Amino acid sequence: MKIVVINPNSSKEMTESIRESLERVRRPETVLEVCCGEGAPSAIESATDMAMSVPPLLEKVRWAEAEGYDAAIIACFSDPGLEPAREAANILVLGIEQTTLAVATMLGHTYSILTPLSTRIPSKEQDVRRFRLDPACASVRALDLSVAQTEADPGLTKRRVKDVSRLAIEQDGAEVIILGCAGMVGYADELERELGIVVLDPTTVTFKLAEAMTETGVRHSKRALYASPRSRGGEAA
Amino acid sequence: MKIVVINPNSSKEMTESIRESLERVRRPETVLEVCCGEGAPSAIESATDMAMSVPPLLEKVRWAEAEGYDAAIIACFSDPGLEPAREAANILVLGIEQTTLAVATMLGHTYSILTPLSTRIPSKEQDVRRFRLDPACASVRALDLSVAQTEADPGLTKRRVKDVSRLAIEQDGAEVIILGCAGMVGYADELERELGIVVLDPTTVTFKLAEAMTETGVRHSKRALYASPRSRGGEAA
Amino acid sequence: MKIVVINPNSSKEMTESIRESLERVRRPETVLEVCCGEGAPSAIESATDMAMSVPPLLEKVRWAEAEGYDAAIIACFSDPGLEPAREAANILVLGIEQTTLAVATMLGHTYSILTPLSTRIPSKEQDVRRFRLDPACASVRALDLSVAQTEADPGLTKRRVKDVSRLAIEQDGAEVIILGCAGMVGYADELERELGIVVLDPTTVTFKLAEAMTETGVRHSKRALYASPRSRGGEAA
Amino acid sequence: MKIVVINPNSSKEMTESIRESLERVRRPETVLEVCCGEGAPSAIESATDMAMSVPPLLEKVRWAEAEGYDAAIIACFSDPGLEPAREAANILVLGIEQTTLAVATMLGHTYSILTPLSTRIPSKEQDVRRFRLDPACASVRALDLSVAQTEADPGLTKRRVKDVSRLAIEQDGAEVIILGCAGMVGYADELERELGIVVLDPTTVTFKLAEAMTETGVRHSKRALYASPRSRGGEAA
Amino acid sequence: MKIVVINPNSSKEMTESIRESLERVRRPETVLEVCCGEGAPSAIESATDMAMSVPPLLEKVRWAEAEGYDAAIIACFSDPGLEPAREAANILVLGIEQTTLAVATMLGHTYSILTPLSTRIPSKEQDVRRFRLDPACASVRALDLSVAQTEADPGLTKRRVKDVSRLAIEQDGAEVIILGCAGMVGYADELERELGIVVLDPTTVTFKLAEAMTETGVRHSKRALYASPRSRGGEAA
Amino acid sequence: MKIVVINPNSSKEMTESIRESLERVRRPETVLEVCCGEGAPSAIESATDMAMSVPPLLEKVRWAEAEGYDAAIIACFSDPGLEPAREAANILVLGIEQTTLAVATMLGHTYSILTPLSTRIPSKEQDVRRFRLDPACASVRALDLSVAQTEADPGLTKRRVKDVSRLAIEQDGAEVIILGCAGMVGYADELERELGIVVLDPTTVTFKLAEAMTETGVRHSKRALYASPRSRGGEAA
Repeated sequence: MKIVVINPNSSKEMTESIRESLERVRRPETVLEVCCGEGAPSAIESATDMAMSVPPLLEKVRWAEAEGYDAAIIACFSDPGLEPAREAANILVLGIEQTTLAVATMLGHTYSILTPLSTRIPSKEQDVRRFRLDPACASVRALDLSVAQTEADPGLTKRRVKDVSRLAIEQDGAEVIILGCAGMVGYADELERELGIVVLDPTTVTFKLAEAMTETGVRHSKRALYASPRSRGGEAA
Repeated sequence: MKIVVINPNSSKEMTESIRESLERVRRPETVLEVCCGEGAPSAIESATDMAMSVPPLLEKVRWAEAEGYDAAIIACFSDPGLEPAREAANILVLGIEQTTLAVATMLGHTYSILTPLSTRIPSKEQDVRRFRLDPACASVRALDLSVAQTEADPGLTKRRVKDVSRLAIEQDGAEVIILGCAGMVGYADELERELGIVVLDPTTVTFKLAEAMTETGVRHSKRALYASPRSRGGEAA
Repeated sequence: MKIVVINPNSSKEMTESIRESLERVRRPETVLEVCCGEGAPSAIESATDMAMSVPPLLEKVRWAEAEGYDAAIIACFSDPGLEPAREAANILVLGIEQTTLAVATMLGHTYSILTPLSTRIPSKEQDVRRFRLDPACASVRALDLSVAQTEADPGLTKRRVKDVSRLAIEQDGAEVIILGCAGMVGYADELERELGIVVLDPTTVTFKLAEAMTETGVRHSKRALYASPRSRGGEAA
Repeated sequence: MKIVVINPNSSKEMTESIRESLERVRRPETVLEVCCGEGAPSAIESATDMAMSVPPLLEKVRWAEAEGYDAAIIACFSDPGLEPAREAANILVLGIEQTTLAVATMLGHTYSILTPLSTRIPSKEQDVRRFRLDPACASVRALDLSVAQTEADPGLTKRRVKDVSRLAIEQDGAEVIILGCAGMVGYADELERELGIVVLDPTTVTFKLAEAMTETGVRHSKRALYASPRSRGGEAA
Repeated sequence: MKIVVINPNSSKEMTESIRESLERVRRPETVLEVCCGEGAPSAIESATDMAMSVPPLLEKVRWAEAEGYDAAIIACFSDPGLEPAREAANILVLGIEQTTLAVATMLGHTYSILTPLSTRIPSKEQDVRRFRLDPACASVRALDLSVAQTEADPGLTKRRVKDVSRLAIEQDGAEVIILGCAGMVGYADELERELGIVVLDPTTVTFKLAEAMTETGVRHSKRALYASPRSRGGEAA
Repeated sequence: MKIVVINPNSSKEMTESIRESLERVRRPETVLEVCCGEGAPSAIESATDMAMSVPPLLEKVRWAEAEGYDAAIIACFSDPGLEPAREAANILVLGIEQTTLAVATMLGHTYSILTPLSTRIPSKEQDVRRFRLDPACASVRALDLSVAQTEADPGLTKRRVKDVSRLAIEQDGAEVIILGCAGMVGYADELERELGIVVLDPTTVTFKLAEAMTETGVRHSKRALYASPRSRGGEAA
C-alpha cells in the first residue's frame, strides 16, 4: 500500500513534521511519501493562499496517480483543492478537514473546531456546511494566535488550546475537540486526559482511515460532483 | 488487536456469515471474534425486536471489555443499543449504521440507504437525523422484500438492489449507495462496476475503521451522552 | 374512558405521586390506572436504564390493551419504549416528552427544557430532533441536581428551577418552560406567576390530551413507523 | 367552561356548519358559541382576504374576553390574525392550523396537508415554517378545486381527497393527513378506514384541545411574541 | 421612472423624514412620492398595529398602480401587508425588511438585526424564517428603547446602537449590521468607520434596488404565492 | 461610476457577448469595462477549470482597484474566486451566482436554477448552501446540454430551457427561474411571457445591482471572511 500526503504549502519544516508524526503511526507495510506543493504559498492563512496553492497541488495529485500511489491526502485543515483533486484522480483522495469532521460525528454528541485566528472562524463555519456536517457542530473557536505564534511559543499555545477547549466543552457542549492547525497537535493526549474528552489530530486520523479504505478498495464517487472533466464533456455528446 | 463483532439477533447463520466476510478483510494480526445475543430475537425487523435485543447485547459488550477486547461492533443496520453500550464500555464501540453514514459523507455529494421493507423507511429516516447526518442524505429506498426473502431469493434480490440503486442515483442524485441489510451485501462490487458509483457494505466498512481507530487509540467520548451511569450519578454529589 | 399511566421505573413512591397529581385533574368520568414496570430499574437516569425499562413496559402496554384501556401514557420524560409500545398497541399511546414538546410549540415562540443533570443535556437534545420539534427549541438547561437530590431538597430544587428558568428566558429567549423531571413539578404555578411565562408539567399536559383525543377517537398512525410487527412481515408476502 | 369559535369569514352557512360539527363533540358541560367576523370577506382564499378578516376578528376576540369566555378558537385553516389576537387577549387563543400541525407531529412520522387550490400551496408551506413545524411536514398537496367547488360537488371532492391522500402516503411517506379546508371534512372516518392512516379534522382537534387546556388553565405565553401592546410600550419606560 | 414609498403608519413626521433621506439618494430622473396610510396606527410596534395598518396600505398600493407608478416600497421594517400588496399589484412591490435581509446575505458571512424593544425579537426571528433567510442570520438584538425614545434621545440611541452592534460582531460573529428602525438610521456611516463593518439602512438599500430593478423590468412573481386573487379563483374553473 | 466585469474564462467571444448585453442596460453615465482572465481555461465546466481560473482573475481584480474602478463583477455562474477576490479588494466585488440567488429570494416563494449538464447539479447544490440561501431553493435542474451545445444549437437550447423550466414550476413549485449559463440567456423575456413567471439573467441582474450599490457606497464586509490577508496576520501581533 502506497500513500502520499501532500502538504499544500511550500514549507519544508511543516512537511518534515508531518512525515515524522505519520512515521510513528503508519503500519510497517505502508509506503509513506510526504511532499509539498512547489511554488505554493509558504503558509495557508487566507482564501488567497488557498487559491494559489491549488495549481501546484493538482500537479502532485496527478503525479501520485501516475506513480501508482493508492491514495492521496491533502494535509491542510481547510482542504484546498479537494474537489478538483478528486476530479483529477481515480485513486482515493481525502482531505483532512472533511475526514476528521465526519469521524467526529461518530464519537460524541457534537464537536468543536479549534482554529488559530478568529478572522478564520467564518471560513471554518462555511466548511462545516460545505461538507454537510453542520448539525453536529457545536462551535468553531479561535486561539487568537497566528500560525507562526503557535509554532514559536508552545507554552502559550498549550495554555490557549486547553482554555479554549474548556470553553467549547462547558459553554457549547462539545464532546469531541478537533485541533484545526498543525501547531496545536502535540498536546492531544494530555488534553484528553485532563479534560476527559476525545481530541482528534486531523492528519493522523485521516492517514489511518486512508490505510483502512485502501485495503478494501474504497474510493470517492466519480458519479457527478467529482466526475473527471473529460467524461463530463462527453456525457452530452 | 482484538475486536468483537456482536450480531444483536440470535441467528447462528447470520453470525457465521458475518464471520466469513470479515475473515476475508481482517488484517492478519487482528483477533476477530463474532458472537450473537443470547436470547435475542431471531431477526430485527421492528422497534420491538430492537428493544428486546438490547439487554443480551449489553451483556456481550460488558463481557468483551472484561475479556480485554479493544473494540466492539454492533452488527445490525439500525444500531440497537448503541447509546447504552457506549455507556457500559470504556473500549471503543461502533454501530455499523452510524459509522457507514459518516463514511458515506466523505465519498460523494449525497448518499442513499437501501432497506428491505418500505415500512422501515421512516425508522431509517429517524436514524439519519439521530446521527445528525441528514443534510447529506439523498433518500431511503426500499426493496419491498422481507429479510427472509432477501436471503431466500438471491436472484430477485440482486435485481431489486440494482433497480432501486438506479432510482436513487437518477431521481435522488445519490453518489454513494449504502446496503442496509446483510442479505444485499454480496452484490456490492458488481453494482459498483455497473453503475459507476460507490457502494458500501456497512459491516466491512465499520470493521476496517475499528482496526484503524484501535491502532491509534481513538475511542468514543465519555463526556456526557455516553458517560458511564456511575460517574453521572457522582457528578452532582 | 379508561386511561392507564405507566411509570417505566419501579419506584412505588413515584407511581403514587403520579397518581395523586392526576387524580386532581382527571375528569370525574375518566377511569385512571397508574402502574409501574415490574423488574424495571428504580430510576431512569441513563440510556442503560431506559433500555432495561422497555421489556417490562411493553408487557404493561399489552396488558392494558387486553384489559380494554383506551389509551396508555408512558410517564417518564425521555419516552422510553415509545416506538415499540406503539407497534404493540392499537390503542392510543402517548409519551409525555413528545406530547409536551408539541404542545409547547402552540403556546409561545420557543421553549426550553429543564433537566436534572447536565450530562443528560445531549440526550434531551437528541430527543428534540427525534421528535422533529427542534426549530422551536430555545435550549435545554440543567439544574445540576440528581433526581434523588430534587426529591430530597425541595427548597434547593425550587431555587434552582427558578434561577435556571430565568436564564432560559433572558439568555435563550424561551417563552415556555418544560419541567423535565417529576421532582420539579410542584412549582409550576408559582413559577408562572413570578416569571410571567408558561410552565408545563408534562404528565398533566399529556393526561389531559389523552382524555381529549380518546373522546374523539384520535390514535397514532399504524402506517409504517408504528406498524404492528406482524403486518409488517406480511406486507411483502 | 365557555369556548367561542370564531369563523373569520362572514359566511353564515359555514358558521352554522362549524356549530353543528362541534355540537356533536363538545362535552355536555362546555358552553359553545360560534360566531363570524362582521364585515369580513365571505371566504378566505387569498392573503388579501386574510388581511381584511383580521380587524373584525380582533373585535370578536376582545368581546369574548369581556364576556368571560375561557378560550377563543380561530376557525380558518390559515390562522389569520393569530398573533394580534393573542396580543389582544389574556384568555387562551388557538388557531386551528397551528394546533393541528402540532398534534400531527405526535401521531406519526410525518404529515401532509391537503389544500383546495394549488396556488395556495406556497402559503401553507410558509405557515409550516412560521409555526416551526417544518421538519415533520411531508408535503402540501392540492385538490385543484376551489372552496366553492368542494362545497358544490361532494362526490368529486371525496374522490379527490382520497386520490390526493393516497399520493401523499405513497410518494411523500405521510402517516397523518390534515384536511385543510372545511369542505373536505366529512370524509375523515371513511378515509381512515380505507387508507389505514390517521386523518385529522382541524376544527374538531382544536376544539377538544381547547377544552383540555382550559380545564387545567393552560394559556399562550404573554412574554414577548404575544405580549399585550400596552405592556410592551411600558417595558422600556 | 416613478416610485412610491408607503409609510404604513400615519406619522407625517416619519413620512417627511423618509422623503428627505431618499431625496438625497434618488437619481435625478426618478420621480419619488412618499405617502402614508390614512387611518393607520401612528406607530407600528405590535402585531395588532401591523394588522390595522394593512387595509389603508392596500388602498395606497392600488392607487399607485392606477397612477402609473413603476414600483411601490413598504417602508416599515416588518413588511406589513407584503403578501396582499403583491397580490393586489402587477407593479413591483418591495418590503424593506425582506430586501435588506437578502442584500445582507451578499455582503458578509452573517448579519444581525437591531430592533428597538426586546419584546419584538421573536417577531423579527419569525420574519427571518418567513423570508427563508435564516441560515445567514447571526442574531437579532434589541436596544431596549422604544421607538419614541430612539427619536427623543439621539445621544442615548447612538451609544446603544454602537454597543449592541459591538456585541453582535464580537459575540455572534455578525459581519453586516441591519438598522431595523428609522430612529437608528443616522449613525450608519459613523458606525461603519468605527467598527469596520457593513451597516445597512433598509429604506435606502431598498429604494436603490427598486430603481435598479425597475430599469430592467424585474417584478415579483405572480405565479402562486402572490397570484392576483381573481386569477386564483379562475384556475380551477 | 466605473464598473469592471471579469469573465473568468479566456473566451473572447463570451467576453464580447457579455459586453453587448450590458451595453444595452447600463446607465449612460456608467463606465463599463469587460475583460477576461489571461491564461484562464477557455470554458469553466469543472472544479479544475474553476481552480485554474482564479489566479488570473485575482490579477484582474487587483488591476481594477488600482485603476480606480468602483466595483468588480465575476461573470461566471459558479462565482470562482469570490472569496479571494473580496480579500484582495476594498472595492465592491460581486459574483453573479450569489447575487442572483439572493435577488430571487425577494421575488417569489422559491427559485430553481437551470444548469447545462446534470453532472454539475451537485456543484450548484453546494453553492446554494455555501451562500446560505438553501431554504428558498426549489431545485437545480439540468438541460443535459454542454455549454458548447447551448451555443451551437439555439433552437434546441430554447426548447430545453422551456421544458425544464416547466418541470421546475410544476413539479418543484418554483416561482423564479435562474438561467445558470450564458447560452440560455436570450430567451428570458419569451419565457416570462409564456410561463407567467419571473426569469432572471444573472449578469444583468448583478450589473444593475452593482450600479445601485456603488451609488450609495455599499461594499462587502472586510471584517473576517473577506478580511485582507495583510490585516489578518496583524490581528494577533
